[in-house]
Order: sequence, then structure tokens, then C-alpha cells
Amino acid sequence: MPVLGPNRYGKAETRVVRVTRHGDAHRIKDLTVSTSLSGDMTEVHISGNNAAVLPTDTQKNTVFAFAKKHGVGAIEEFALLLARHFVDSQPTIHHARVAIEEYAWERNGGFGHSFVRAGREIRTCVAHYDGTRSWVVSGLRDLVVLNTTNSEFWGFVKDEYTTLEETRDRVLATAVDAAWRHVDASQDWDKAYENARGALLAAFADTYSLSLQQTLYAMGSRVLAECPGVCEVRLSLPNKHHFLVDLAPFGLDNDNEVFFAADRPYGLIEGTVLREDAPDAGPAWE
Amino acid sequence: MPVLGPNRYGKAETRVVRVTRHGDAHRIKDLTVSTSLSGDMTEVHISGNNAAVLPTDTQKNTVFAFAKKHGVGAIEEFALLLARHFVDSQPTIHHARVAIEEYAWERNGGFGHSFVRAGREIRTCVAHYDGTRSWVVSGLRDLVVLNTTNSEFWGFVKDEYTTLEETRDRVLATAVDAAWRHVDASQDWDKAYENARGALLAAFADTYSLSLQQTLYAMGSRVLAECPGVCEVRLSLPNKHHFLVDLAPFGLDNDNEVFFAADRPYGLIEGTVLREDAPDAGPAWE
Amino acid sequence: MPVLGPNRYGKAETRVVRVTRHGDAHRIKDLTVSTSLSGDMTEVHISGNNAAVLPTDTQKNTVFAFAKKHGVGAIEEFALLLARHFVDSQPTIHHARVAIEEYAWERNGGFGHSFVRAGREIRTCVAHYDGTRSWVVSGLRDLVVLNTTNSEFWGFVKDEYTTLEETRDRVLATAVDAAWRHVDASQDWDKAYENARGALLAAFADTYSLSLQQTLYAMGSRVLAECPGVCEVRLSLPNKHHFLVDLAPFGLDNDNEVFFAADRPYGLIEGTVLREDAPDAGPAWE
Amino acid sequence: MPVLGPNRYGKAETRVVRVTRHGDAHRIKDLTVSTSLSGDMTEVHISGNNAAVLPTDTQKNTVFAFAKKHGVGAIEEFALLLARHFVDSQPTIHHARVAIEEYAWERNGGFGHSFVRAGREIRTCVAHYDGTRSWVVSGLRDLVVLNTTNSEFWGFVKDEYTTLEETRDRVLATAVDAAWRHVDASQDWDKAYENARGALLAAFADTYSLSLQQTLYAMGSRVLAECPGVCEVRLSLPNKHHFLVDLAPFGLDNDNEVFFAADRPYGLIEGTVLREDAPDAGPAWE
Repeated sequence: MPVLGPNRYGKAETRVVRVTRHGDAHRIKDLTVSTSLSGDMTEVHISGNNAAVLPTDTQKNTVFAFAKKHGVGAIEEFALLLARHFVDSQPTIHHARVAIEEYAWERNGGFGHSFVRAGREIRTCVAHYDGTRSWVVSGLRDLVVLNTTNSEFWGFVKDEYTTLEETRDRVLATAVDAAWRHVDASQDWDKAYENARGALLAAFADTYSLSLQQTLYAMGSRVLAECPGVCEVRLSLPNKHHFLVDLAPFGLDNDNEVFFAADRPYGLIEGTVLREDAPDAGPAWE
Repeated sequence: MPVLGPNRYGKAETRVVRVTRHGDAHRIKDLTVSTSLSGDMTEVHISGNNAAVLPTDTQKNTVFAFAKKHGVGAIEEFALLLARHFVDSQPTIHHARVAIEEYAWERNGGFGHSFVRAGREIRTCVAHYDGTRSWVVSGLRDLVVLNTTNSEFWGFVKDEYTTLEETRDRVLATAVDAAWRHVDASQDWDKAYENARGALLAAFADTYSLSLQQTLYAMGSRVLAECPGVCEVRLSLPNKHHFLVDLAPFGLDNDNEVFFAADRPYGLIEGTVLREDAPDAGPAWE
Repeated sequence: MPVLGPNRYGKAETRVVRVTRHGDAHRIKDLTVSTSLSGDMTEVHISGNNAAVLPTDTQKNTVFAFAKKHGVGAIEEFALLLARHFVDSQPTIHHARVAIEEYAWERNGGFGHSFVRAGREIRTCVAHYDGTRSWVVSGLRDLVVLNTTNSEFWGFVKDEYTTLEETRDRVLATAVDAAWRHVDASQDWDKAYENARGALLAAFADTYSLSLQQTLYAMGSRVLAECPGVCEVRLSLPNKHHFLVDLAPFGLDNDNEVFFAADRPYGLIEGTVLREDAPDAGPAWE
Repeated sequence: MPVLGPNRYGKAETRVVRVTRHGDAHRIKDLTVSTSLSGDMTEVHISGNNAAVLPTDTQKNTVFAFAKKHGVGAIEEFALLLARHFVDSQPTIHHARVAIEEYAWERNGGFGHSFVRAGREIRTCVAHYDGTRSWVVSGLRDLVVLNTTNSEFWGFVKDEYTTLEETRDRVLATAVDAAWRHVDASQDWDKAYENARGALLAAFADTYSLSLQQTLYAMGSRVLAECPGVCEVRLSLPNKHHFLVDLAPFGLDNDNEVFFAADRPYGLIEGTVLREDAPDAGPAWE
């Protein structure tokens, strides 16, 4: 008989908005929460017996109820709260994974009740709990950045399929998708987020880049330098190509002034930067 | 024989990024440009004779070349420049429509060459030119706003299919899609944009709303009040429902604190607000 | 005081699936329904008085209730049923617009209860009703077609920005977005749909194309020829460029064998083909 | 100094269309190819020295050139060909991952040169090569299926947050995302694909389901049963909820006839089914 391997189930993308009121100055937290549980799940797969299954509908209800009962502070804290609840309250559930995305809002003028969705990046986290230990990864995505100069690309391998010209000055642009693993599950999450975000932006800006890999490593290293509680950083950086348009046919030069921003294909640079003494990641990245 | 009715052709979504350098402080304009031409196009439809057709590839080249030659200021200006060029330079082209979207960028720290894509709204415009007259519509989309209170909805028609409860306090949220028509093609475009955007945000915030229609009318009216050069405003406002979650089954009250942000279906409120003496729109909205 | 111009409101994108059972052989209709109403709406815009407003929530309920009471046959019929209901039952509603998209499903094997979502195109319709007259437009979108040959493009205008080479053999590909207006609101909708769809596909295939405009006109004309109840066809055809890859640097020729399928920019050809005696369109295309 | 962990780089989403001509009967293969290489990449991360870097642009060129030189048969074969080329030809590259998506086309009528994009699923594969061994995973995504009956859900855990009613008859719908690992890199790929796809569809249809987990396990097991060369199957099945609409307020019953197809949140069931003697997966799933 076929073996049941790793499995998990849950409710994905519960959209919850939590409003708190301090007099006229309201505050909103706008989240998408995805929960995944695993445990004694052999029987439900083999025979459809649901005796061990906490319904995904219940998981959704729990997200809403907890938002009310406990409020929503840092998303990492809320994720841990949920993960621990599912495992600690359900004998058949041995592991929980909770992933949250947060959308930032800014105040609309001087009004305490009116908000504008801020753009820029989406803040993310994933928390795991197995009944004993917790793991937390924080991150962001869709942080789109661009340098108009201070980027070169040359000295690469040339084979029979290479036609790319070397360049000493190009536009470098990417949509940062980053995640950083914390050494333990007790941090000042908001401060760590601000530090990590600031480190990513600063390293992107002040690294004179000879390759996007170099920029990636600099960004990861900077996060480690600025965030003592972080032991590992993973980055996925699409190289959002900005091709210099050839204007010579029209009698025009183009000294890095006019670019075509291409969609596909795109370079994709993925890498990990970690401390030498980083503890084992366990299920943190799953 | 079937009759050829209204038609146009062009190059859609040319992604152009224009960099300008003032010493170390660079500036970027990031646009998507779509051009549409019409004119003596019967023959190409009937027989495939292309003698009257300026290729869409050429239209794309022109966008890039003009970005170099003329620079890119306000998108309305750039759209007019292109529209006039096509009609004035090509005897077979009698009408041009140029639509542009602009993505905003902010400086990344104190660096003159490093930028972060700003979120919030996308700025838009559509310019028409027929060889004699020009029409310009400016706008924005994806400006997502939310009020946590000061919104009611009651006193509506109840028929046999009505189950909705009346409410004296609800969350009101929308993604503003707005466009405003200018009385003439010579304005301070950037100033008008800032005024219109500010008017939309202010009216959304300070209107005590009994229906989203009322908010729409207030927003449109405010733009007219703040922008003397604007004669007509069109708004499309999805009612991004935030449903109060029923927490009673869990022994919890929910005094407008926890909401489910639904995707579909959504209310959609569309309307026009214009000055009594607004001139005829001509092809402006096409 | 600013004038209230054209306006409408409704519930967009209600996702309704209707199952009917004929013994073990079930049938499903999978629709997205959007309703828009207009009428005595000045007061709600000016003062927020909702006395004339049938809530969008009620409109959604009506869609579901009608799916049960009347079943769902051709989407045009269902759209008309809804449009007429809103106007005829509500004194304050003078005009209704109902737009429907239908997703096709095929049987999964020989099972009467199991289905696979068919891909290819999405069927669409828009019905209008003003208390007296009805208008119906049917259509489809996302019908992606490609010819590997029998397409040329040459003899076009060359100006100073033209670099495109003429070609006597190219790939022609598009995602057909088509809509056709019926002369009256009483047709064999399903038969007309099959005829129109077949006409579009056949004309795309058997037209030796010297320009996409020519193909567009042929497709529109073919629909008119095959569908006696149709008086006007509107087509929007993106030219999904398939660029021949230059393999010469690698010592390889490329005789129309290897293409790069580009995303953006793309040509966009839009046009109308109609009968000489087509009645006035009224609000049909709004 | 921070340590460089796992990393890879490549060109993502190269869109290549390959046409072959057998007289008048043409054939097209429509692919999106993503390549990722790793090897001696410490230096490029630390210092930006690109001496070990085969540019992503070259990788793209190679995809196009190989499509010409070798043609495109089964995507697994094309992926292996590319992966082996990069590692075997470049001393600094020690591992290659090539992922391909294929979009199906059907003939448009009896014409040898005209095609319609088929909908339904997208075929996928990922091949790895490390200079010695190869690993191949095949799969599909976006295979949307629905059963109108033969699905129950009851007997689950009830805690204080559970409000879901038990049901003995519900709609079960999902968008199958499946991948299966082959025991070796030499298979009849197209036959295996048809077998696996058929097994997934048949098991979905003929499994009387007490939970989506049970259906998942049945689908995975069926693939193993039908495909001798497959040793492991991974499935990710969103539970595309079809909620029975409450029509009681309108005096109507609803005996599983009218459903609201919800977008979010959705259940998500993920699981692995494998042979007891499945060899170690190595990097196959990375």
C-alpha cells in the first residue's frame, strides 16, 4: 500500500481587519492569515475518518475570535498565539504553521478614522510550533527598488551562446522578496522589522554593485549586522531588466537616459546569508 | 457588404523609464504608454493594403525617441506631444489617442541615484487630438481608502429578496478609480493632479456618509471646487465590503472591531459629477 | 451646484453555480453575474437618502433566488430575466444592465456528477432593459488563437522612427475579445453563440492575412454572415507578438521555427463591423 | 563574516514557441522555461567577481538555440538536455535546475497551420542534474475539477470555535496542483503524463469522498498504480468552497442546487503519497 508522506491542511488566506479605538484615533491592522495543521492524520487520508480533524472552518473562526480576544499586535506574536493554541488545545494536532501577510495603512490627513493603503512592501511572517519549540521567520515582499547608476556587469563567462555586452554602468532594479529567521521566538518584532527593512534598503543603495549576487550578499549581511536576533536571511531578487533603448537609428544617443522596462524573462538571483553559529533551522522554512 | 464602423489601432503598454541627471541627484519617470491611431483605414481592413498604416512598432519607437528628445514632464504633456506628432506628421492619421500610466517612486534614503517604488495610487491620463482640437482627461486608480466609522446605511428599499440589516455604523472602504476632464489642453498638470488627489482624499475622509453614492458625489464635487480647470469628474468606486464577523457563537461581542474583508461580490458605484456649463466632451472619454 | 451626470450602481461579480439533476446525469452552469441599476438617484447622491435604493445585497440575493426559481438556461435569457425584474418591480429603477460571464465545464469521464473546467474562451453577455425595450450583446473573451503561417506585413508607412522589417511570413496570434449585438432580444442564444464562435475561428484560420486589421474585418464579417440575428460585431485583438529569434550569432538559421512570445508592449487592433441597416445601438454597448 | 548558504541564479520565464512543419501539418510547442545554476559562486557574492558566472542572458540564448538545434519533444527531455549542457560545459557550474511549463494547443478546424489554445491544465516539469545524477519531477497545475455529489464531511473535531454543520452531501471542487517524481531520468514522458493525468481525473471522479484528504490520498495512490516509473506524488488541493445559498428567507428550498463559489479563504490540503521503497529524493523537489 502506498505510504502517506508529509502532509498538512488548513485554511488559507483568511482576510481579517482589526480596528481598535483610542478615543478618536483609531488604528487598523489588515492581515491575511493562513493556518496549516498536521498530526494524527493517517486515518483521514486512508478512510476519510475525520475524528482527528479540526475543520478548516474552525481555524478561520479562531483567527477572527483571537483577533477580538487578544487584539493584534506584531504579526509574529499573533501567528505564535494561533500556532500554540491549535497544538496545545487539540490532542490530535502536533504541529502548526501560521503564515501572515500585513498590508500597511497610513492616516488620511488629520482624521483619526480615515486611512489610505500604503504601497511599498507587504510585511510577512511564518511561525511554527510543535508543542515544545517555536520557530519564527519574518520578511517582506514587493519592495521594489531601483538604482540609476553604481551598477556594472562584466568579466563573466563567455561561451558560444553569449551575446551580452559588458557594461560599466547600468540600471539595477529588483522587487525584494526577503525573509529572516530569528534565533528565538521572543523578540521586539516591530523593531526588528524596521531594522531589517532599513538594512535592506540601505545596503541596496550604498553597495556599488558588480553583480546582483554581490548586492544580495550585502543586503543579507547588513540585516545580520543590524538585527542581533536574526541568524539567517534568505533573499529572492528578480533582476528587473531595464534595457537601454537603441536610439541610434533615429540619430539620437542614449547615455543611460531611456530604458525599456521588460517583463519576461528576468534574471532571478536567490541566496542565503547566515551566521556561522546559526542554530539548525528545523521546520522554520517549510 | 458589411460596413466598417469605428476602429483604431496602436501599441499598447510600452514600458518606458526615463532617467534625468542633475549632478548626483537623479530623477526617474516610470510610464506605461499606449497609443491608438485612426484615420484612412478602410483599405487595410478590406484588402490588407497597409499603405495608410504607421506600424505599431513605429509608434513604440516614437515613444522612446520622444522620451529622449523632449524629456518627460507631466504625463499629460507627453501624451499631447505624442498625439499631435502622429496626426500632424502622418497624412493618413486623423485622430490619435494616447493613454499613460505613471508609477511613483520615492528617494531611497539620502542617495541621489536610489529609489523605492511608492505604492498608493497610479496616476493616469488620456489625451485625444484630431488635428485641430485636443482633449485631456487625468486621473488615478488603486487609491485604496478606508473609514472606520462615520458611515451608515439605512432607509433603503426592502423587497422580498432583501435580507440586509440596516446599520448606523459601518466600515466604508473603496479603491478609488477617478478621472477628471479638463476644460482645455493647457493646464498646470502636476498642480491639478495634486489638487484633485487631495480633494478626493479629503472628501472621502470628511464626508459623514449615508451611502457610498453620497461620498462619490462629495468627492466629485470637491475636485470641481479645488480644480478650476476641471469640468467633469467620473468615479468608479467598488464598495470593498468589510463584514462584521459574528462572534456571538464564541461568547464574544464585536463592537465594530473584527471584520472579514471580502473579495467578491462587491458593490460598484459609478457616477459622474460635472459643472453646469461643462463643454461637450467630444471624444474625451473614449 | 455641481450637476449629477450619468450614474449606476449594483453588485459586481456574484459567483453563482447552478446544479440540475436529471437522474445521475447532472448539469452545471457556472456564472459570474454583475448587475447595475439606475433611476431616481439624485437624492441619494446629494443627501444620502436611500429611499430609492434597492441594496446591492438584495441584487445579489435576487441572482441566487432566480437561479433557483427559474433555473439558468442561456446566459442572455437569465440576464434579461434579471434586468426586467429589477425595472418592472421597482418604481425607482428605470434602467438595468446585467452582465454575465460563463465558464464552461466538460464531463470528467463517464461520470454524471464529475466535471472538468474546460479552458478556451469565456462566454459573455450584457443585457439592458429600460422598462420598454431590451438590448442584448453576446460575446466571448480569452479565445487564444495562432496561425503559424499565411500572415504577411509589408507596404506600411515608413517615417523617421520606423525600423520594422517587412515580412512575407510571420506568426499571427491573438486573444480574441469579441462582442456581437443582436437585432432583438429574442434569439436562439446558444445556437447564435456556437455560430458566432465558429465563424470567428474559421475566419481567423482561413483568412490569408496581410494585416491584423484585415483579419479583424474578416472575422466580424463572418459573424454577420453566419448569424442572421446579429447586426454589429466589435472586436479587440491584441497582436500577441511572436518575434523570430536571431540565431545567427550561434551559427544557426531560423526559418520561422523558434519564436520569443513577448508580453508587452503589444499591438492592439480594435474595430467594428456592422450591417448597413443596423438599428441604432441605444445603450447596448454601455 | 556572514556565511554564504545555498544559492542559485538563472533566467526565469523565457517564453519560447517552437514550430515544426511536416508539409502542411504544423506542430507547435509553447513553453515557459526557467533555468537556475549553482556552483563556484562564493566570489561573485563576496566581491562581485563574475569569473564563474554564465550570464542569465546566455542561459536564455541557450534555450532558444537548443529549441532550434534539438527540437522540443517532451518537456522533461528538453529540461534534462539543458540542465546537462550547463553543468557539463561549464567548469564552474556544478548543479542545474530547469523548470518548464507547457501550454497545450489544439488544431483550429481542419487547418494544419491554425491553432486554438486549449484550456484545462498546464503541464509542468522540473529537472535537476549535478554532473552525475539526474532527477525529474513532472506535474500539472490548474486542473479544475468539481463533483456535484458523492462528497460528505462529518465526524470532525468540535471545539469552542466550531460552527460548521456536518453534511452528507456537498459539492467538492479543487484546482489540482500535482507533481510526481520519477524513479529515474529515462521514461516515456508523454505516456507517463497521460497516465498520471488520467489517474488524477479518474480517482477524483470515482472516489466517494468523506474528506478532501481521502480524495488526495486516492489520487496520489492512483498515480502510483498507473505509472510504474513514478515513486512519489505531491498534491496541493485548494478546497474551492461552494457554499449552499440559504434561500429560506425567500420561501425557497435549496436541495444542493444553488451555490456561491467563494474566493477566499479556502481550505488547503497538501500531502505526499509515495512507494515504500521510493529512493531518496535528493534535490528533486527543490
